[in-house]
Amino acid sequence: MSLLERTIAAVGPLDPAASAAAAERQRRLAKPPGSLGRLEVVSIQLAGLAGQCPPPLVEPVATAIFAADHGVHAQRVTPWPQEVTAQMVLNFLAGGAVVNAFARQLGATVRVVDVGVAGVLPAADGLAIRKVRPGTADLAVEPAMSRAEAIQAIEVGIGIAAELVGEGHRGLVTGDMGIANTTASAALIAAFTGRQAEAVTGRGTGVDDITLRHKVEVVDRALALHRPDPADPIGVLAAVGGLEHAALAGYLLGAAAARVPVVLDGVIAGAAALVAAALCPDVLGACIAGHRSAEPGHAIALSHLTLRPLVDLELRLGEGTGGLLAVPLVQCAVRVLHEVATFDSAGVSEKG
Amino acid sequence: MSLLERTIAAVGPLDPAASAAAAERQRRLAKPPGSLGRLEVVSIQLAGLAGQCPPPLVEPVATAIFAADHGVHAQRVTPWPQEVTAQMVLNFLAGGAVVNAFARQLGATVRVVDVGVAGVLPAADGLAIRKVRPGTADLAVEPAMSRAEAIQAIEVGIGIAAELVGEGHRGLVTGDMGIANTTASAALIAAFTGRQAEAVTGRGTGVDDITLRHKVEVVDRALALHRPDPADPIGVLAAVGGLEHAALAGYLLGAAAARVPVVLDGVIAGAAALVAAALCPDVLGACIAGHRSAEPGHAIALSHLTLRPLVDLELRLGEGTGGLLAVPLVQCAVRVLHEVATFDSAGVSEKG
Repeated sequence: MSLLERTIAAVGPLDPAASAAAAERQRRLAKPPGSLGRLEVVSIQLAGLAGQCPPPLVEPVATAIFAADHGVHAQRVTPWPQEVTAQMVLNFLAGGAVVNAFARQLGATVRVVDVGVAGVLPAADGLAIRKVRPGTADLAVEPAMSRAEAIQAIEVGIGIAAELVGEGHRGLVTGDMGIANTTASAALIAAFTGRQAEAVTGRGTGVDDITLRHKVEVVDRALALHRPDPADPIGVLAAVGGLEHAALAGYLLGAAAARVPVVLDGVIAGAAALVAAALCPDVLGACIAGHRSAEPGHAIALSHLTLRPLVDLELRLGEGTGGLLAVPLVQCAVRVLHEVATFDSAGVSEKG
Repeated sequence: MSLLERTIAAVGPLDPAASAAAAERQRRLAKPPGSLGRLEVVSIQLAGLAGQCPPPLVEPVATAIFAADHGVHAQRVTPWPQEVTAQMVLNFLAGGAVVNAFARQLGATVRVVDVGVAGVLPAADGLAIRKVRPGTADLAVEPAMSRAEAIQAIEVGIGIAAELVGEGHRGLVTGDMGIANTTASAALIAAFTGRQAEAVTGRGTGVDDITLRHKVEVVDRALALHRPDPADPIGVLAAVGGLEHAALAGYLLGAAAARVPVVLDGVIAGAAALVAAALCPDVLGACIAGHRSAEPGHAIALSHLTLRPLVDLELRLGEGTGGLLAVPLVQCAVRVLHEVATFDSAGVSEKG
């Protein structure tokens, strides 16, 4: 079996006994039943993922930022120059990006992965060079990549998840960087959800009305050209995806196979989760939607996946920033199962 | 002047120059303009509060839990015994409550303040005994407290804020404990917003339909009895408030006077913020709504105050838990202004 096949085979459903034990424990803690709202749901999910109650504390945490370029940049779907992808990778490595500031605040490690940046990046601490190809082809005129390249990029993501878990991380966060990647995300989301390009395509970094209309046309044209079949997830990914989408899909599968929770950032991760869930529906047991971005396709992707975001602050930055913001919420949710007294142990009277 | 009068006099508006500098800095950072959404708004507010850009990092953080009992408990507005207030104080001091678990996760200090618990609590580390009276009178049949007691309790909160800031804390969080305090909160919110008891009264810890209808009637009866005048905030507080509401109002004023941000927890803090803002509208410059609780009066209070909550996870626990969850979001928002590179300094190209 290939690494991808082995990984999918290793992903299993949540353990219902551990989830039930967490739900029961939540009822016995010295607080009104249900009063922790959606954090109780998270704690029950993660007990099921770990197969034990309480599940391990969600720390230390690492964010992997998968960086890649996009041939569809040639279609002028964004006013940002393509070299910003590589420039931002250098900024991540220098610690000067928002994701770095958030990671320092939250005590998370940042790993940058070149899975397909156009141009050669210098070796650096914190940078894993796993370039599958120097950017995709232009999905508006030809497949973005071959099926073999899509699988190779997925396996890069699987490998990074395994490395980070092997280093002892007990929570993963998705990150991404790739100028024009909201266009590929929109195409993926349209392909998997059956929604129109117009519904799932947004302003990304903040394009104007004319560029937005053009972006919708480009996505429409790509869908008409490739007619992607959601029953063939690798085919969809190869036709209209990005190398970072492929790697992120693998990263989610790798986290799920290791039964370590992975917090999704924004629309890029949402598109990648559609790929991963199409390959292996049980992957969602390891996934927590960190936030809802301002990009319209993101809410559609999350709804399709029946994932509810924890944070909704109108972020549209990417990099992993929205995922990181949700990490303390997840950590608190799990810590409750470890540390909070029951009515009995605290000597607190229950309601009459 | 009294401590209350001096504190109100010390609260000033946000500094527009520092806020403008933060807004300008956000535009120059290496990210799409506006892409941090509501975190940018928070960073601009806190620069204006500090009168400098960047404002100080929001750490270390302390939560003060103001605990008090309520005479209206006699009206059977809750199935929980009154002694749970004191029992939960002991649980906070033992570190066994949810607020303790969250505080440990987030590195925050917890200070418990007995501002009016019925019964005598033993001296303990972390407990400030500032009892104004052993619980309020029953607001359904008489004023909950005298005006002098209301002012005394407000000044307890002012003092606690000053102590915590004096110890070096650069972010405060509100916390509260008091069986039956959602009933007093509903009466306060109705008095200040002009909304009906039915709209602002909720299930609190989870009361059944019959108890909820009864609770609405009790709030209605109290409003008819006292006819509280929102132009006289101390009078409203004395008539239908709780000692912890009074102390929390003072805590907000004390934070604002020290120009230190204070994150509000749920409906109890929202009701207290109505009191504080009625006494001194500029207090809101220091306030950040941490979360929106499941209690219906909370959204009404926040809307009246034009505060938008950062987290919305259907929590209805109190203790300070929802406020603590928002702390890392606020910390991340401020850290961005300190640490993120500009386009120039990072060598990142701007959009064409």
